[in-house]
Amino acid sequence: MNFADRLALAVQEAGTPLVVGIDPWADRLPGLRPGMDRTALAGLAREFGLAVVGAAAGQVPALKPQFAFFEALGPAGMQALADVCGAARAAGLLVIGDAKRGDIGSTATAYAEATLAPDAPFPCDALTVSPFLGPDSLQPFLAAAEAHGRGLFVLLRTSNPGSSRWQSPVVEDLSAWIDTTNAARGAYGPVGAVIGATHPAEGAALRAAMPHTWFLVPGFGAQGGSAADARRMLRPDGLGALINSSRGATFPAGRDGDFDLAPERWIRTRIAAVRGDLRG
Amino acid sequence: MNFADRLALAVQEAGTPLVVGIDPWADRLPGLRPGMDRTALAGLAREFGLAVVGAAAGQVPALKPQFAFFEALGPAGMQALADVCGAARAAGLLVIGDAKRGDIGSTATAYAEATLAPDAPFPCDALTVSPFLGPDSLQPFLAAAEAHGRGLFVLLRTSNPGSSRWQSPVVEDLSAWIDTTNAARGAYGPVGAVIGATHPAEGAALRAAMPHTWFLVPGFGAQGGSAADARRMLRPDGLGALINSSRGATFPAGRDGDFDLAPERWIRTRIAAVRGDLRG
Repeated sequence: MNFADRLALAVQEAGTPLVVGIDPWADRLPGLRPGMDRTALAGLAREFGLAVVGAAAGQVPALKPQFAFFEALGPAGMQALADVCGAARAAGLLVIGDAKRGDIGSTATAYAEATLAPDAPFPCDALTVSPFLGPDSLQPFLAAAEAHGRGLFVLLRTSNPGSSRWQSPVVEDLSAWIDTTNAARGAYGPVGAVIGATHPAEGAALRAAMPHTWFLVPGFGAQGGSAADARRMLRPDGLGALINSSRGATFPAGRDGDFDLAPERWIRTRIAAVRGDLRG
Repeated sequence: MNFADRLALAVQEAGTPLVVGIDPWADRLPGLRPGMDRTALAGLAREFGLAVVGAAAGQVPALKPQFAFFEALGPAGMQALADVCGAARAAGLLVIGDAKRGDIGSTATAYAEATLAPDAPFPCDALTVSPFLGPDSLQPFLAAAEAHGRGLFVLLRTSNPGSSRWQSPVVEDLSAWIDTTNAARGAYGPVGAVIGATHPAEGAALRAAMPHTWFLVPGFGAQGGSAADARRMLRPDGLGALINSSRGATFPAGRDGDFDLAPERWIRTRIAAVRGDLRG
């Protein structure tokens, strides 16, 4: 089954477009004690990731592990990432690897092999990629995605305050490239687009202009995008967009003892609350 | 000492602006045998990287490991990357991590901690970064670089055929942002720019327009940029640009038995030849 169809089915089965991000921020991990070395922190990151997997299974269609936080913990952190990706897929969740990779030729192929191949060490159903190097730089990722029923989410309009400066000059051409690439492949194609909930009007316009493209929408909650803003990225049938919540769905606003005692239970309650917030 | 001064000293000491890339392409590694698993391939990637370090020490100012090829080999590959980065720095070579990372806020900080912090698991003297998310996305990388005497190389005009499409609309503003950021910090600043040897005329114009910025120049050799093209990125004093050669300096053009028998000796001879080619 191609990625767009798998995504639609997963959203329909879960009854929500909510995606939960896994950001194992070393300063905030449950079980953290002073003086822990990187290997110990990688163990906590693994446990945190597995707690999110356990809490999310059956509640949402997909998880979005953030590669940077695992990479900061070194090779042991990357082993934790591999374990968390594998556990999420085993639990029936789609995995969107948030790595924002981008490179050319065989280097791009190597990044795709790391994540999108059937025997990838960091197995993902989709990968976030940066388009800055040009359309030829996206082809190795697209080839791997199509060969293996996986998908991409290309950065188009990110949620941060400075995103317009070097994205706005290319957004029209890039959005057309993405949707045209998809149009040749069916109702929805495998090349998604990242569009922040912090740009609701532009997002709604892009929604109308890109009928063949799934959106991945960060910026809901902590970064200031409202549930109503985020919902503007959906099509009327409730498909066409995944709305991400990372720390809002997985970390307490302040320090919280209950979090340390039973993170999976705490996160499950939080995810249910964010699902409700998003429904409005 | 700040990164720009360290770079100038290293180029002067080595007597060449040549940087050697480390691309442990799994299909071409010395010692490769059919049916090797990822852990075995990671061992070969480590040996290959250490052979390049041994061959390059004293001959060139810097090495440029390509993160993608290590990542494709999983956590063991990332351990090999950590070992190769550490060995290169111990041998007195500057390490330019070619990772093309880019993200926002604490995620960008995590990528910087992975590579630019004093105790980084993948220790680099500089990191390639993508500017697509905007100037605010570069600030965490810049803060880490400045705090620790490290540098960045921002993608500006990459060497691939399709690079113009989403780079040309922003190249003027992005190049001005980079050089202005540097100008506040001295003759040369810590924010380098990646400019392919495949754009010699545009590169020469950017060289004139960006007097405070070190260039990192890929595309010399295999990708079609000539030595004369690459040298146009240098200032008259021979500083201001690093010229990269990856596979041309480290892999035989065809299969070659001698490569398997003594890779370090073979690569040393090859690096000396590419140094000579670049001198013209």
